[in-house]
Amino acid sequence: MANEKIPYKIYLTEDEMPKAWYNVRADMKVKPAPLRNPANGEPMGFDDLTPVFCDELVKQELDNDTAYFPIPDDIRNFYKMYRPSPLVRAYCLEEKLQTPAKIYYKFEGNNTSGSHKLNSAIAQAYYAKNQGLKGVTTETGAGQWGTALSMACGYLGLDCKVFMVKCSYEQKPFRREVMRTYGASVTPSPSETTAVGRKILEQFPGTTGSLGCAISEAVEVATSTPGYRYVLGSVLNQVLLHQSVIGLETKIAMDKYGIVPDVIIGCAGGGSNLGGLISPFMGEKLRGERDYQIIAVEPKSCPSFTRGTYAYDFCDTGMVCPLAKMYTLGSSFIPSADHAGGLRFHGMSSTLSQLYHDGYMEAVAVEQTKVFAAAEEFARVEGILPAPESSHAIRVAIDEALKCKETGEEKTILFGLTGTGYFDLVAYEKFHNGEMIDYIPSDEEIAAGIARLPNIPGIND
Amino acid sequence: MANEKIPYKIYLTEDEMPKAWYNVRADMKVKPAPLRNPANGEPMGFDDLTPVFCDELVKQELDNDTAYFPIPDDIRNFYKMYRPSPLVRAYCLEEKLQTPAKIYYKFEGNNTSGSHKLNSAIAQAYYAKNQGLKGVTTETGAGQWGTALSMACGYLGLDCKVFMVKCSYEQKPFRREVMRTYGASVTPSPSETTAVGRKILEQFPGTTGSLGCAISEAVEVATSTPGYRYVLGSVLNQVLLHQSVIGLETKIAMDKYGIVPDVIIGCAGGGSNLGGLISPFMGEKLRGERDYQIIAVEPKSCPSFTRGTYAYDFCDTGMVCPLAKMYTLGSSFIPSADHAGGLRFHGMSSTLSQLYHDGYMEAVAVEQTKVFAAAEEFARVEGILPAPESSHAIRVAIDEALKCKETGEEKTILFGLTGTGYFDLVAYEKFHNGEMIDYIPSDEEIAAGIARLPNIPGIND
Repeated sequence: MANEKIPYKIYLTEDEMPKAWYNVRADMKVKPAPLRNPANGEPMGFDDLTPVFCDELVKQELDNDTAYFPIPDDIRNFYKMYRPSPLVRAYCLEEKLQTPAKIYYKFEGNNTSGSHKLNSAIAQAYYAKNQGLKGVTTETGAGQWGTALSMACGYLGLDCKVFMVKCSYEQKPFRREVMRTYGASVTPSPSETTAVGRKILEQFPGTTGSLGCAISEAVEVATSTPGYRYVLGSVLNQVLLHQSVIGLETKIAMDKYGIVPDVIIGCAGGGSNLGGLISPFMGEKLRGERDYQIIAVEPKSCPSFTRGTYAYDFCDTGMVCPLAKMYTLGSSFIPSADHAGGLRFHGMSSTLSQLYHDGYMEAVAVEQTKVFAAAEEFARVEGILPAPESSHAIRVAIDEALKCKETGEEKTILFGLTGTGYFDLVAYEKFHNGEMIDYIPSDEEIAAGIARLPNIPGIND
Repeated sequence: MANEKIPYKIYLTEDEMPKAWYNVRADMKVKPAPLRNPANGEPMGFDDLTPVFCDELVKQELDNDTAYFPIPDDIRNFYKMYRPSPLVRAYCLEEKLQTPAKIYYKFEGNNTSGSHKLNSAIAQAYYAKNQGLKGVTTETGAGQWGTALSMACGYLGLDCKVFMVKCSYEQKPFRREVMRTYGASVTPSPSETTAVGRKILEQFPGTTGSLGCAISEAVEVATSTPGYRYVLGSVLNQVLLHQSVIGLETKIAMDKYGIVPDVIIGCAGGGSNLGGLISPFMGEKLRGERDYQIIAVEPKSCPSFTRGTYAYDFCDTGMVCPLAKMYTLGSSFIPSADHAGGLRFHGMSSTLSQLYHDGYMEAVAVEQTKVFAAAEEFARVEGILPAPESSHAIRVAIDEALKCKETGEEKTILFGLTGTGYFDLVAYEKFHNGEMIDYIPSDEEIAAGIARLPNIPGIND
């Protein structure tokens, strides 16, 4: 062990926990591009967004200048139920790899949602409650976000309507039951309960649904039911703001022990975990105080950073949401049935896209089988069964540590372990049985997705 | 909040973690009765037990005098990966119940086995490795113990052969895949790989197996394969010794903040969790230093303490194991298909049975539907989705807190939250759908089980 004084797990005391979220946009010289109205291409302001989202969240969404937003006491108290999350020194993994590198991970899986999603779910539910709303609507695919939101709403006594992609609803009954335990209503999408759902069912009888369709249903219910708003678990600026609690806790814990990471690694789907983990470190980098190597890891099956283009696009396949400027494969791009459901998003957070575009971070894409091999290696020595999403970061952390073994460098590597894989064992089984396939889209498929980007004069031309 | 200074979660530092296990038998005036050979009724000694169990574990099993066993460094390092477990102040549950009681729980579910089982699994695997063995065998029903043992063996590079009851193997493929991730071989029982398995399959073609049969297969493989021993996750004295880490951590955390529990509550199947949680408190009670109300909670469907008899009996339905003196419903008693698989054992730890017999603890039995109602109430305010087993303790903790509301007493209640319910969602679904049944055995059924106890002259007469 390189440093005997550093414990296996660093926990903060409640007094040391962050009292404000950090908004990385405040330190960006080039701000992320605004959301735009798909009808006329105009930037969307407060009044355009409040019919869909809670007022306070819209303010957070639009604010590129305020660096710190105080975390309300009620949210801090909820955080205390499952936070601080541990910053773990991966002594056992280092030993296994025989690397001179020092590896740390911030583990966000020790709560019933099994992931970091709860950090933003409780914030969004709180602001809805505070606005005097009756409830919120959302969509869920794999189910982590739906579970987190159900937990937050259950705690606050807020109604929660989840539209769950029908094939997931049927294939993942356990996820559905967890949400019901917390009092949420879970509707398989497309459903007969909305106009858009009925229309889709008429056009495509027997369809098993899609995330795009579930979003459309959730938005319809939110905007047509008095006292309801729609909430979302990733991509948006507000979500990255709430998730900054991950990076802030990490930074406080590291500072306490004088640890400075050389490399920071996170998996990237819509960007909620990566954006949260890196935010205070990125802040230092943007302000020129310190340099870090920051690596986003995405699946080769859905490589928005590494093979996408930087342009305005729809966030949803149903094309009902505002346009966002981001690295995208095109909203019509259908990723293969890759098992890391949380990383199967065609686009990427606007904030992270701008930072990547400006050279503040790197990105790598990895094959699924190599991700599961890393997951298994990690589980055996570190105990935790990781989610496939999180395992993308593990893969690259191991690769970096093995490079250090070659060069003899004693780099300090930090990665985000966003969640646990208890609900992903079908994928693990495929891996064990040698039935897992590495799907990599062809150049033609990538080009076709990008060719169908919305064509808005003066914006995407 | 009654005391502002007590945090939501109390974590010990690594320096504060226990350095030795506590053996409650050392403080018992009346020692638990010895294991006896079913062939001749003689007490079993070191040489009788070492063909089946590891040498060091047999020593621990037989030692009624040594109060503290130092925890080997390698085990303490493994403990540091997932321990200390948090002692949680249930502020949100207290608020919900509007009770003057102060409620604490020790949460053992923050590891991939999802339960406290890992505390003994790593100890048993360590001693096997230290003895130069190649591997261990065991049986598993619901899968928590098999998962914990797989994790421990995966970490130490020890072979692990798990016999999993065939119906669980088929119905719980996820549990099986977790074990495979950690490198264990999992065989559905009964199997063609053992003589006893083949015999059972010949007699009962198409049988879906039983725990008794799986034990018989695991013991056969351990005793007939050079370099292997059999290990067990509950009931035995050695297991309670290792699980004392739960109670010791709890006691250290409580002492640190000057908290003294009035009531201590744990669920009881074979006794591993309850015995571990209460041990240091029971030690004080046995030594006359302090009094505590200690309550064991069992399901009404399998009420060994409250409706069983105190006698020598087989620990397994296959009747291949030594006889233990315990509260038992008879090894032929078949509990209903109650969902709390971990509490479906016909007997009880000999140590706890003696303590109960001597009046040092109480026992209550609760109905399943009331247990799930408590589980759901708890989940919504405290966030954690509890295992059905653990929820038995939650039920009684809530009942005690509601009594305090009636009387105005400000009692301090401590209970053990042994694990999470991620793999028990079929049961939650039944509960949500109103399809859960409260099965309570008739007096005739209880009498029939007890009537078939082994009849050994001079012992059970």
